[in-house]
Amino acid sequence: MPVKVGLCGLGTVGRGTVRVLSRNAAVLAHRSGVGIELVQIGARNAVPDADTGAIPFTRDIFAVATNPEVDILVELIGGIEPARELVLTAIANGKQVVTANKALIATCGNEIFAAARARGVTVAYEASVAGGIPIIKALREGLAANRIRWLAGIINGTSNFILSEMRDKGRQFADVLAEAQLLGYAEADPTLDVEGIDAAHKLVILAALAFGMPLRPDAVYIEGITAIQPEDVVYAGELGYRIKHLGVARRNGEGIELRVHPTLVPERSLIAQVHGVMNAIMVKGDAVGATLYCGPGAGAEPTASAVIADILDIARRLDGGGRDATPVPGGGPDAGEPLAVLDIAAAESAHYLRVSALDKPGVLSQLAQILSAHGISIEAIIQKEPAPGQDHVPLIMLTNRTRESEVRAAIGAIERLESVSGPVVHLRKEALDDA
Amino acid sequence: MPVKVGLCGLGTVGRGTVRVLSRNAAVLAHRSGVGIELVQIGARNAVPDADTGAIPFTRDIFAVATNPEVDILVELIGGIEPARELVLTAIANGKQVVTANKALIATCGNEIFAAARARGVTVAYEASVAGGIPIIKALREGLAANRIRWLAGIINGTSNFILSEMRDKGRQFADVLAEAQLLGYAEADPTLDVEGIDAAHKLVILAALAFGMPLRPDAVYIEGITAIQPEDVVYAGELGYRIKHLGVARRNGEGIELRVHPTLVPERSLIAQVHGVMNAIMVKGDAVGATLYCGPGAGAEPTASAVIADILDIARRLDGGGRDATPVPGGGPDAGEPLAVLDIAAAESAHYLRVSALDKPGVLSQLAQILSAHGISIEAIIQKEPAPGQDHVPLIMLTNRTRESEVRAAIGAIERLESVSGPVVHLRKEALDDA
Repeated sequence: MPVKVGLCGLGTVGRGTVRVLSRNAAVLAHRSGVGIELVQIGARNAVPDADTGAIPFTRDIFAVATNPEVDILVELIGGIEPARELVLTAIANGKQVVTANKALIATCGNEIFAAARARGVTVAYEASVAGGIPIIKALREGLAANRIRWLAGIINGTSNFILSEMRDKGRQFADVLAEAQLLGYAEADPTLDVEGIDAAHKLVILAALAFGMPLRPDAVYIEGITAIQPEDVVYAGELGYRIKHLGVARRNGEGIELRVHPTLVPERSLIAQVHGVMNAIMVKGDAVGATLYCGPGAGAEPTASAVIADILDIARRLDGGGRDATPVPGGGPDAGEPLAVLDIAAAESAHYLRVSALDKPGVLSQLAQILSAHGISIEAIIQKEPAPGQDHVPLIMLTNRTRESEVRAAIGAIERLESVSGPVVHLRKEALDDA
Repeated sequence: MPVKVGLCGLGTVGRGTVRVLSRNAAVLAHRSGVGIELVQIGARNAVPDADTGAIPFTRDIFAVATNPEVDILVELIGGIEPARELVLTAIANGKQVVTANKALIATCGNEIFAAARARGVTVAYEASVAGGIPIIKALREGLAANRIRWLAGIINGTSNFILSEMRDKGRQFADVLAEAQLLGYAEADPTLDVEGIDAAHKLVILAALAFGMPLRPDAVYIEGITAIQPEDVVYAGELGYRIKHLGVARRNGEGIELRVHPTLVPERSLIAQVHGVMNAIMVKGDAVGATLYCGPGAGAEPTASAVIADILDIARRLDGGGRDATPVPGGGPDAGEPLAVLDIAAAESAHYLRVSALDKPGVLSQLAQILSAHGISIEAIIQKEPAPGQDHVPLIMLTNRTRESEVRAAIGAIERLESVSGPVVHLRKEALDDA
């Protein structure tokens, strides 16, 4: 007996999923052992088309969640409500659930996974992070032998596209954003992407799986890419680095760092070579070392690939007669380590500082003194000659790994110097090679 | 009740597995749901040490395969016999099996998987390809929604280390090999690595999973890296390419190409940036597009990471009460496509040709005419001035994608020209961006 799927949402991903289910039906039947049958589609506004063909269609998405024929409800409507209510209704009705909804999992996942556990059903969410890259499966199963030390990912394609263009063509942020909107890479309202909120949702899901901690979207430190200046892209390049927008989750002994921000990464590292709308996630485990996963992080069929992988996993398990024993996010702590999310002040990284300083003797020595007083050493420095008619010069420094609170205090002291004008530009740097 | 593991083989990987099982016991208990207990170790020659501690030890590995207490037999002795007999004995005794043995799976996998199916047990082999990278799981489950078009991988760390050194330092093959042996990256007998046999074993396993075809180690076209000249590394660089030793499996409409050979890849592609002993595999699926998986391809703990991931999968399934429904290599064809392995003559790729030609008018035109007569066009060309006292010049050409048989016929005709001396150097080129 084929496993019966009800699908809600006929946007880009919904239509892609219907298309791949139909095109690859023979392969999927073979790989699932039982066959996958799409028995109902629900969408509030969309219109059935040639792809959805003869599949029963309803405008009442809750009819799909309560349809006694449906084994697996696939939620592809996005957003929090009514997606949350739909998923909880499906769970209450004993359905397995597959979702691509990162905002829903990140913000309501604790509630949803608890409901699923109580009802003995699975909520699968591979498509919620990094589109077609099977990173959830890698973290949850492929790397399950490891204690994860850190993970760092390019998990928002729009931001990565904009940064790639800024670097390759020396363009301004606002200029590239406008083009990305024209090309359809960026939404009309790009806030979720360029302010880092979308990346934070994904980071929260990855961290919850990697460390067994609860989903904590409220606890992520978030900086977007809107403030990045082309000159910092250039200076980073001169120092051997590229600026990528990373989500970073890291154990640091005191707890878990959860942070999303522009980051200098070594230009020879693989993740620095990930261009355009691609996503990539690096994971450092205690046994395996560092592994990297790269691919399309969005799009109709890449996301459908992940949605259908989840459907197949569930179909095989239902067919095999077993219950789902794979860990869920927040399923429990690793070996009693502290899992509290740290304030950004307690995070550790190296830092990039750009100071606009008066071009006169002694200023560099003042800066070095302030940094030293906070236990910060300078690993690299660029000082440029003043432009004609300017009395201030840019002074760019890379520091050692140090606590954020110390760097912030040092920046405060530097900004109070009379020989320094304007705010200090502050970015973080990750070598991605430490233990 | 914990799942009970018997482990055979106490080499590097065996000891690494014992170490990680012990170090991460608490995490593994949590993630498996039941706990993993190592109840017996068998090794013919090794000596128990501090790591193996109080675990019952035997020199009779078959005693582990027949031990009624053992649920999962972990085979880490390597080679074909007695590993094959050990695994078949364990299967006959109803044990689940986990192995890191690529030679065994590639050459005896058809027999082993059939025996396992008949007995209703699982044979898991994540560690047999690319060490700690969970590529088997990605292909079998994560990308299961896709019809795989091709995959291409750096799947032998020793060869990649040698090629990386040759390129970075302009060194000769034999010279780097000697250093790799000193560093412990290459075996005393490096034949399996540098002749491409090890890579062929891994390619066969990946292809069998990707396409549902039987394991066909006899059918792989294999070229190693022993014949690569430093000058070709340089010329490839001038043309914008790096030489990597790739295993390639590709559908081409007539059947499956299975080939292992040095390959020019665009220097801006991610796989070109994979240096040293790292492994990386690119997979192109019809829905997901291209994804890439990168990490340590060998070593004690990276391989242990994969071995233990397999143990956890089996433990969860045994605990969940289900049977294993995931596809196995050779589990069946995809949608009735031709799965015959093609002779290399029927393979398609672009080509790099280096001809030593007399430095006189008309020679280039002769070459172009011969290529054109075989339907081959020249996409790029380098001609160098003759060295002082030399009357022959190197002439390097990149061709369009064309059938191997045509290129070979053209090479034969070129080598028969009086104005050409010596054999034509022939390498293949893959853009890794086609459908």
